[in-house]
Amino acid sequence: MAEKFFSEKNLKFTLYDVHKVEDLLKHDRFGDYNRESFDMILDTAKNIGSGFMYPLYSEMDKNAPEYTGTTIKVNPAVRQYMNTSGEGGWINAMFPAEHGGQQMPLSLFNACMFIFASANYSLSVYPGLTTGAASLIYNYGSESLIKDYAEKMVTGKWQGTMALTEPEAGSSLSDVKTSAEPMPGGYFHIKGQKTFISAGDHDNADNIIHLMLARVKGAPAGVKGLSLFVVPKYRPADSGELEFNDVNCAGCYHKMGYRGAPIAQLSMGEVDDCRGYLVGEQNLGLTYMFRMMNEARINVGLGATAISSAAYYASLEYTRERLQGRKIDEKNPLNTQIPIIEHADIKRMLLQQRAIFEGSLSLMVYAGKLVDLTTVTEGEEREIYELLLDFLTPIVKTYPSEMGITSTSQAIQCLGGYGYSSEFPVEQYMRDVRIHPIHEGTTGIQGMDLLGRKVTMKKGAAVKIFLEEIQNAIDEAAGISGMESSASDLANAAALWKDTTYSLLGIAAKGEIDLFLADATLYLELSGILCIAWQWLLQGIALSKTDSGENSDSDKNFSKGKMFTLNYFYQYELPKIHGLALRLKNSDGLTLKMKPEFFED
Amino acid sequence: MAEKFFSEKNLKFTLYDVHKVEDLLKHDRFGDYNRESFDMILDTAKNIGSGFMYPLYSEMDKNAPEYTGTTIKVNPAVRQYMNTSGEGGWINAMFPAEHGGQQMPLSLFNACMFIFASANYSLSVYPGLTTGAASLIYNYGSESLIKDYAEKMVTGKWQGTMALTEPEAGSSLSDVKTSAEPMPGGYFHIKGQKTFISAGDHDNADNIIHLMLARVKGAPAGVKGLSLFVVPKYRPADSGELEFNDVNCAGCYHKMGYRGAPIAQLSMGEVDDCRGYLVGEQNLGLTYMFRMMNEARINVGLGATAISSAAYYASLEYTRERLQGRKIDEKNPLNTQIPIIEHADIKRMLLQQRAIFEGSLSLMVYAGKLVDLTTVTEGEEREIYELLLDFLTPIVKTYPSEMGITSTSQAIQCLGGYGYSSEFPVEQYMRDVRIHPIHEGTTGIQGMDLLGRKVTMKKGAAVKIFLEEIQNAIDEAAGISGMESSASDLANAAALWKDTTYSLLGIAAKGEIDLFLADATLYLELSGILCIAWQWLLQGIALSKTDSGENSDSDKNFSKGKMFTLNYFYQYELPKIHGLALRLKNSDGLTLKMKPEFFED
Repeated sequence: MAEKFFSEKNLKFTLYDVHKVEDLLKHDRFGDYNRESFDMILDTAKNIGSGFMYPLYSEMDKNAPEYTGTTIKVNPAVRQYMNTSGEGGWINAMFPAEHGGQQMPLSLFNACMFIFASANYSLSVYPGLTTGAASLIYNYGSESLIKDYAEKMVTGKWQGTMALTEPEAGSSLSDVKTSAEPMPGGYFHIKGQKTFISAGDHDNADNIIHLMLARVKGAPAGVKGLSLFVVPKYRPADSGELEFNDVNCAGCYHKMGYRGAPIAQLSMGEVDDCRGYLVGEQNLGLTYMFRMMNEARINVGLGATAISSAAYYASLEYTRERLQGRKIDEKNPLNTQIPIIEHADIKRMLLQQRAIFEGSLSLMVYAGKLVDLTTVTEGEEREIYELLLDFLTPIVKTYPSEMGITSTSQAIQCLGGYGYSSEFPVEQYMRDVRIHPIHEGTTGIQGMDLLGRKVTMKKGAAVKIFLEEIQNAIDEAAGISGMESSASDLANAAALWKDTTYSLLGIAAKGEIDLFLADATLYLELSGILCIAWQWLLQGIALSKTDSGENSDSDKNFSKGKMFTLNYFYQYELPKIHGLALRLKNSDGLTLKMKPEFFED
Repeated sequence: MAEKFFSEKNLKFTLYDVHKVEDLLKHDRFGDYNRESFDMILDTAKNIGSGFMYPLYSEMDKNAPEYTGTTIKVNPAVRQYMNTSGEGGWINAMFPAEHGGQQMPLSLFNACMFIFASANYSLSVYPGLTTGAASLIYNYGSESLIKDYAEKMVTGKWQGTMALTEPEAGSSLSDVKTSAEPMPGGYFHIKGQKTFISAGDHDNADNIIHLMLARVKGAPAGVKGLSLFVVPKYRPADSGELEFNDVNCAGCYHKMGYRGAPIAQLSMGEVDDCRGYLVGEQNLGLTYMFRMMNEARINVGLGATAISSAAYYASLEYTRERLQGRKIDEKNPLNTQIPIIEHADIKRMLLQQRAIFEGSLSLMVYAGKLVDLTTVTEGEEREIYELLLDFLTPIVKTYPSEMGITSTSQAIQCLGGYGYSSEFPVEQYMRDVRIHPIHEGTTGIQGMDLLGRKVTMKKGAAVKIFLEEIQNAIDEAAGISGMESSASDLANAAALWKDTTYSLLGIAAKGEIDLFLADATLYLELSGILCIAWQWLLQGIALSKTDSGENSDSDKNFSKGKMFTLNYFYQYELPKIHGLALRLKNSDGLTLKMKPEFFED
């Protein structure tokens, strides 16, 4: 099995050289950090990833969680990892000091998450889910909710979850039916069903704390009537002991991949004794949830990027060792076979993987830095970062997720028949990554979000900022020897994207909203390619500055490999925008006119 | 679980209306058949598929074959299916009468195989492997080999295999090392290892007969020294009893999908008692094998097409039943949710699946008919069919295989979280289809075959014929109301393909063969899209002739659905050629210049 699942050198290059996360240190919030502590934290993450998580990667897939009738049995390593995460301060690392946190920048934290997720994606999600849930309580919950729940959760002893989805309310959260009835004791009676709840129940935590959307009786229909509740599996009784809160685990689904983490079906209030505790104000539940959504969606993109990284390194190792075939001009079958990495088509498949996940990683770090900047700036400056972050989020979530399928599939292809065998590590990566275009909002939903909301918000303010950022990169690259043509290619691509966007906005202006949005998924795909091309240009610019002439051979190989990968992206991936733009500019409503009955046969 | 896995109406439309397989009946070889018997055979296949195979589809995945230490335990249904196949005459259906066969046209047989493979791909391969092996014996083996082996195999009691691959010889068959030493008794001592042998050993056949490539001692190195042998697991002893032939099953791989059929590792001659019986002449082994290769590769494309068909119908059923969300202009959350098939993006995902697999099916039937025509024609006419078939084979194998990943992935996406769950049928299809870009020659190998051999053979004769066939379709479609613009789009696409081809041939003319072939995989992808666009035009032409004005509502819906799917292909899939052609015309040898050490970090 491959031993390497990410590149420390590339991760640091992306953090420090491309996105200059050290710039964040000048802000008070991050003043306790420096480059040295950043590196130490990355080292710690690497040790946890290599030493503890990676060795469990295959085992957790092969022995997937099972429903016991009352809970879900997961690998005992989960408890150990949750404890490690709690003790190491990973769960609340990013929280502000007043919430007991370490004020770690998200850019750095996500770099660690990238390491964890590439080591073992399933295992990596347990503490992250707790982080999200605890953060909601700290930000919007009462002091007693913080004391009773959040403080326990960050120790890693209690699991947190985000309980949104119901059997009849997946993409359509406005149809959430779980009900909450106010009771004299200040709590609410909760009744309903939830499904697909990640880590929604398991036997490796002392308690499970659900941050749950429910509808207070009499609240408005739709999303405007959703409130947020803390709904624990066990609630603290007056005695101080924990008592069962009538949150019943009704089963778990078995999954194609991502099998180390269970998704539970839950049934609340079967004996009318499920208590929920309101977080913040009534009917603002979705608002609270969505304030976390950017980060949750960056997480999905990051997870997909990490899985693709691990698949790449496994396939790279194989292609270096596997001897098969000979050079095209070598006719003598008695000469020894060559490592397959010397075949052009194998190099193409490796370059494609690298172009996808290293480009994605750069975008992930960029997005993380934007989150950090929104926490340390104010006024107009902050608004710019927020707009850009909001705009990029659907792309950040989707490009790595959708292209992760292609990337991990190429890893399989590099191994041929062995790649298809479970005895080799790569097929699991393709199964694992397939969840990402689905959870936290499907690709279709992200497309509508990008085109229907983000492009149009504040009269296109985000589009303007986005294009300015791209233009800045183009201007800089145009002056760097060897990057002129990439700069020019990106300028053309940005112009094509802008044309396409205006063409679509022209449809919206005529009020034909369904036609405007019909191919939003393709628009998202087009935008993703443009974004990653931009991120590759930023990497090229950064490279040109690190080349001091005194670089080691290893540095030179890294630098050359990067430039080849940049050129690969511009030569092989970027041209895909032409087909997409052609379609988008010819919007004819084909999918609107197609009727369900025409699918009859 | 979905009950429909293919469309009888579409299959018959493709056979009879698009490709007019009834035209074959005028040839003596097929003179015993008529439309009525064709339909009866299809009905029988449908009954076997629906009644027996489909219900086992999920079970055979969940309870995969296991190595027992000496053989591989498979589902007991395998024996039953092999017997059914033998008794029903399916194994030797296409063989000529003098070989005991029914002279069934491949076009019809493949239509049945499409039904079987969409019902249960893993189960469908067992008799097909026997067919291939028995066919080799009938065509090139001695009378005694026919009597001792082939005649047993076609009963379904004995399993046949194609044993080519070795641990060090996968894509590179010239490195096959299994040795054969001539012995006084007229047989050869066989010694060596084989791996990835489909159905290479299992407990549901009375004997396993390997058609095995091995190298006679002293034979030339490379592929020119390979001979073909019958190597049975049990050989008939002088007593008439069967005795063990020292063919040892050393294990099986566990696979990502396609789990109902085992791939075995074999070890021959562990106690120096493995006998092989030469088929035909020494050193012609690969030649014999490759005469079957076109059909084997059509089979792979057909399997991928079939799996995509089954995934489509499962996702179609779900999207009709699942209520989620509302129309874009519907603001009232109290109104009931709509079936998701009414959302434009869902229709797009359904149309993409249908465009891929119905386009592929048309190409499969076309290729099958070409095979049939080569068996009933002679001289120049036959050469035209052979050239076209040889040319199309890498495309026929690859387009459905590679695009089957996309197609089945869209089926998952239509089901959202349920699609990712093993409790629903679609995730298995994506796992099952992933084998197809690998087995019977990887996509990379197919690309080199298309560009390096097929484009250039006989001074480009096949290219000329291919373009003429496309032009014929364009000319006909140009005169049909409603198809003019598709005809024109295909003309432009064919021109672009031709330009690209000439541009690449210009590189070859300069002797830069490695540069010429560097992006052969992309050229294959481009060619695949062109081919499927052509097949869709042929379907449109056929539709225009079936529209009698007296069609039933069901016929009208079918016809409208087809036209929408055709237009989908032209609007969404065909434009992808621009990006590919752009890259191919700018061949700069990027993947040739990229050195293995640049992948260091």
